[in-house]
Amino acid sequence: MEPNNIHINRDYHLLEKIQTPDDLRIMSQELLPEVCSELRNFIIESLSKNPGHFASSMGAVEITVALHYVFNTPYDRIVWDVGHQAYSHKILTGRRERFATNRTKGGLSGFPNPDESEYDAFIAGHASNSISAALGMAMASTINHDSPRRNIVAVIGDASISGGLAFEGLNNASINKNNLLIVLNDNDMAIDQNVGALNEYMTHLNTSPRYNRLRFKAYMMLKNLGLIDEENKSKILRFNNSLKSLLTNQQNIFEGLNIRYFGPFDGHDVAGLVKVLRDIKDLEGPRILHVRTRKGKGYTPAEKDPTTWHAPGKFDPETGITEASKKPSVPPLKYQDVFGHTIVELAEKNPKIVGITAAMASGTSLSMMIERFPERTFDVGISEGHAVTFSAGLAKEGLIPYCCIYSTFLQRGFDQLIHDVAIQRLPVTFCIDRGGLVGEDGVTHNGAFDLAYLRLIPGMTIAAPIDEHDLRNLLFTAQLKPQGPLAIRYPRGKGNLTDWHNDFEEMPIGKGRKLKDGNDVALLTVGPIGQNALKVATRLETEGVSVAVYDMIFVKPLDAEILTEVAAKFSHIITIEDGTVVGGFGSAVVEWFNDNCLNKTVTRLGIPDRFIHQATVAQQREECGIDDESIKQAIFSRIKK
Amino acid sequence: MEPNNIHINRDYHLLEKIQTPDDLRIMSQELLPEVCSELRNFIIESLSKNPGHFASSMGAVEITVALHYVFNTPYDRIVWDVGHQAYSHKILTGRRERFATNRTKGGLSGFPNPDESEYDAFIAGHASNSISAALGMAMASTINHDSPRRNIVAVIGDASISGGLAFEGLNNASINKNNLLIVLNDNDMAIDQNVGALNEYMTHLNTSPRYNRLRFKAYMMLKNLGLIDEENKSKILRFNNSLKSLLTNQQNIFEGLNIRYFGPFDGHDVAGLVKVLRDIKDLEGPRILHVRTRKGKGYTPAEKDPTTWHAPGKFDPETGITEASKKPSVPPLKYQDVFGHTIVELAEKNPKIVGITAAMASGTSLSMMIERFPERTFDVGISEGHAVTFSAGLAKEGLIPYCCIYSTFLQRGFDQLIHDVAIQRLPVTFCIDRGGLVGEDGVTHNGAFDLAYLRLIPGMTIAAPIDEHDLRNLLFTAQLKPQGPLAIRYPRGKGNLTDWHNDFEEMPIGKGRKLKDGNDVALLTVGPIGQNALKVATRLETEGVSVAVYDMIFVKPLDAEILTEVAAKFSHIITIEDGTVVGGFGSAVVEWFNDNCLNKTVTRLGIPDRFIHQATVAQQREECGIDDESIKQAIFSRIKK
Repeated sequence: MEPNNIHINRDYHLLEKIQTPDDLRIMSQELLPEVCSELRNFIIESLSKNPGHFASSMGAVEITVALHYVFNTPYDRIVWDVGHQAYSHKILTGRRERFATNRTKGGLSGFPNPDESEYDAFIAGHASNSISAALGMAMASTINHDSPRRNIVAVIGDASISGGLAFEGLNNASINKNNLLIVLNDNDMAIDQNVGALNEYMTHLNTSPRYNRLRFKAYMMLKNLGLIDEENKSKILRFNNSLKSLLTNQQNIFEGLNIRYFGPFDGHDVAGLVKVLRDIKDLEGPRILHVRTRKGKGYTPAEKDPTTWHAPGKFDPETGITEASKKPSVPPLKYQDVFGHTIVELAEKNPKIVGITAAMASGTSLSMMIERFPERTFDVGISEGHAVTFSAGLAKEGLIPYCCIYSTFLQRGFDQLIHDVAIQRLPVTFCIDRGGLVGEDGVTHNGAFDLAYLRLIPGMTIAAPIDEHDLRNLLFTAQLKPQGPLAIRYPRGKGNLTDWHNDFEEMPIGKGRKLKDGNDVALLTVGPIGQNALKVATRLETEGVSVAVYDMIFVKPLDAEILTEVAAKFSHIITIEDGTVVGGFGSAVVEWFNDNCLNKTVTRLGIPDRFIHQATVAQQREECGIDDESIKQAIFSRIKK
Repeated sequence: MEPNNIHINRDYHLLEKIQTPDDLRIMSQELLPEVCSELRNFIIESLSKNPGHFASSMGAVEITVALHYVFNTPYDRIVWDVGHQAYSHKILTGRRERFATNRTKGGLSGFPNPDESEYDAFIAGHASNSISAALGMAMASTINHDSPRRNIVAVIGDASISGGLAFEGLNNASINKNNLLIVLNDNDMAIDQNVGALNEYMTHLNTSPRYNRLRFKAYMMLKNLGLIDEENKSKILRFNNSLKSLLTNQQNIFEGLNIRYFGPFDGHDVAGLVKVLRDIKDLEGPRILHVRTRKGKGYTPAEKDPTTWHAPGKFDPETGITEASKKPSVPPLKYQDVFGHTIVELAEKNPKIVGITAAMASGTSLSMMIERFPERTFDVGISEGHAVTFSAGLAKEGLIPYCCIYSTFLQRGFDQLIHDVAIQRLPVTFCIDRGGLVGEDGVTHNGAFDLAYLRLIPGMTIAAPIDEHDLRNLLFTAQLKPQGPLAIRYPRGKGNLTDWHNDFEEMPIGKGRKLKDGNDVALLTVGPIGQNALKVATRLETEGVSVAVYDMIFVKPLDAEILTEVAAKFSHIITIEDGTVVGGFGSAVVEWFNDNCLNKTVTRLGIPDRFIHQATVAQQREECGIDDESIKQAIFSRIKK
């Protein structure tokens, strides 16, 4: 990477005057560009030391300043979608001084969260929810007869708007009387590359005399042809929107949905944004303001490579060199990369293998297969439900789909798992990344529930590999004799093996293994936490405690042979999982002992029945009582009984 | 109801020649209207005796005949959405003689199901899945290089297309090379009433010289204004679609998504349909064929009142008088109607109460509140995810939403329950109708999983009333001190009380009740199945077996006091639920005994870990071992041990 020579001005004299948006609103409008500049420098400086979501937040600086300048927050509501882009919002709403605690235990959440601030109008984290939530809030304001009028603003990116939930919200926006404003923050519409000159030409289309002339001519033409009735004024709006949409060559999903459309505007012209927001602020009915922005705006390295700079980790602000780029890429690899290399290896041998993801190509490393087999790999955008049903369709015609979705986002495909995959027993393999505690992304992103919600689905096979070798073997096994749905669930982050590239071995479905013999206590685990269990058990040998460790590998079906052996030999049994204890793996073990009349009391370690907030994974494990020390204590407290 | 005088011709000489669609395809095209007529008569005669989905299937007769006539099924695939409308399809594909077994145990499924016939290309039941599934199948055909070319057709209604999943499918349809054909069966677009004269005028728009003239003029105008480049032909299609969409005043969600649009066509002109299908059959790339149909077409009573005739029950084919209309409406009421009356009663006193449903207004009886408080009640169409998040938005602003969704469809809102409701602890009350086994609708519609998937959500309160009084009291309690999400889950069908209208009483959260004392065995139940348990226990007194019955009411939190008492007194404990045993209520009880070190073996009765197919509810209960006799046997087998 070419080092840059960037000057970061660390003068925040305007920001320091802004404790709340009220302080911003009394400032002269001419100062807003300077506020934006200070915000950018503050974000650069802050994130260079304390990593976070960089490029999106840099792109949304002017939108944020303009919204708080024009709207009376927190009385008016801003609902952020996903919330990657909301750092300026946090900084302007009383959280500048605490911003260094972003994404850390006890500190600020990386996403908007109403528990943190009254300025965070709604939870954010999972994409595409803002329009539905804001529409609910807007209707509530209508029903409550709020006076003065309360404005509700949803800010949604062009990626999020492809989600079905966003469409359902849009489709309902105009049905009832409300004053919802949707700001579409458009930084990467897929259609962009086709637009070329028209794109530039059509900026400020709304106020272009040429456009107005055209609109009038077209209207008269339709009228003369008898196709538009003079009295039927409502059609004119629809036509204007059709035309604008045509000319700007956008995906025109709004126009047909009876939502007034304004745009596109330059999302980095803060004065222009203030003007248009003031113009449309008091209009009645739902409106969409379409603004074009640039990811990473104002920081050259990020503008050049927004994907790397989505969440770049620590970096040198003056050179733009990230710490990650300085580190040599040596094993152990991330689990996702072991997956990525392996799926390519398998796809090379088996032409029936296809890969699917839903806007998580780089996050799941399915990108490796996209590069190698573009015609057999599908990134369907933010649409997890579609990803699951689409995979089912592929499987129905004899292909072998690997559907790669983060644990927390697969919740969006829960019904499709049951209805479209499981009822038909289709052999779709779900590669569930980010299973278990995920650390800094916090409460909205933990993969806490998957083992429990997958387990209740008839015919679902669920495996959690203990290490990279098992991950590879499970991926290999999935395509040998595909039979019904299979979930392979693995965590965020790195494994521990330097020799990750083993020769493939078939793994028998529903068979676990004994990792260590013992006499006093039996630990039953699934997933990489089994490595910790083994470590603890081995150490305890020196303290005279004999602990057996069983890696069950499969949550469903459970290995009855191991459970029978364990029940016969041990009165102290502990299950350990990186997942919820409610209905999860430990619950399955308890159900099994119960149903087989084996009268065993099982200590069930796992994520407790509450939401776990941002921290490091190690801190979260400690909080949940599944760190090494807690496992040890659980063993001792069982022996004492 | 005015009796009609309808002649049903019971001559099926053409149908009798059609064992498979091959037999249809060799027929002269002139005979197709007669085939359609025979199909209608056959459906009328058959459904008058053996109830099913009437109006939708009557509306889709010509579409079905034309599709099988033009396409080479089963090599070509027809994917039905929901499948209400697929009766003609079943009759034409070798199932005419078994059609009298429709929706009965061991008989035909009421929906397409690949387990039943190779002509059923994909599962149907939950709306909006057809485009995603068919797109997967179409992509598979591309990857498999199927030769001859395999055509994939998705048939979707205008209601289903409002679902987010359908939009996600549409949004992905043109991204990869495929030959998907989407048939939009449009019988009730919400916008219809506004269309008036234009509607008629625009039928066969595609071939109208006037439209072509207009299209050309508009195109030249844009070109002369410098807005369309001669070389940039791709914009022309987009413009044509925009214009057509404008003129026909449809929700034009297709045009921006780069899918070729054809329509609207008359969906009851079988010759016209055959012609257009032949015209567009071999075109490359994704296409939409938009046809307008009428629900109940060809049977006057159903055309007049398609809502009643959606699934009318038994009726007299000659008079159109349904058996339901002859029965006086006396209690016991359906649970849904108890809900409907009660929510109106509560909303009259509490202005904060709002009602939400997702295209289930009549099915949940929220229609009663829509009628009484239209401005506080929202039917958001088929969009369960939106319904949940929209409810969350309403609750966030201080309203008290009751969100009414069938158990099986709430699976579509699973992520929204967690992310948008539970994390924020919002007091949304979920009124979950059709909980448990639902009978004739079968495998796709059983509400088997709700207790299990709700239970794993932190902070979720889950109640299942044993009868209409408790349902009323729970609904009353929900709005007294709203705190966090509450699920109230009740079954399809009628209750047992004639005096259903009790005075409201607050119900303490997490408190169950003892229904009957006993010494030998304890039954723990939730929901109306507790009434059966009590009946069985009472009868067993005469056989000298002393059975206690506890109605736990709440699945979460569990009543620790009752469980402690039960553990102290009984060694024989049986849980009974109308829901899956995997992770459900019985599992919660087992977890609780285990976690409290009470070493109890619990017999867990409920829906087993497999999918349950169509039958009567009584037959399904027997199959699942939760009918009265099975409960009795479970008691005896415990005592014997």
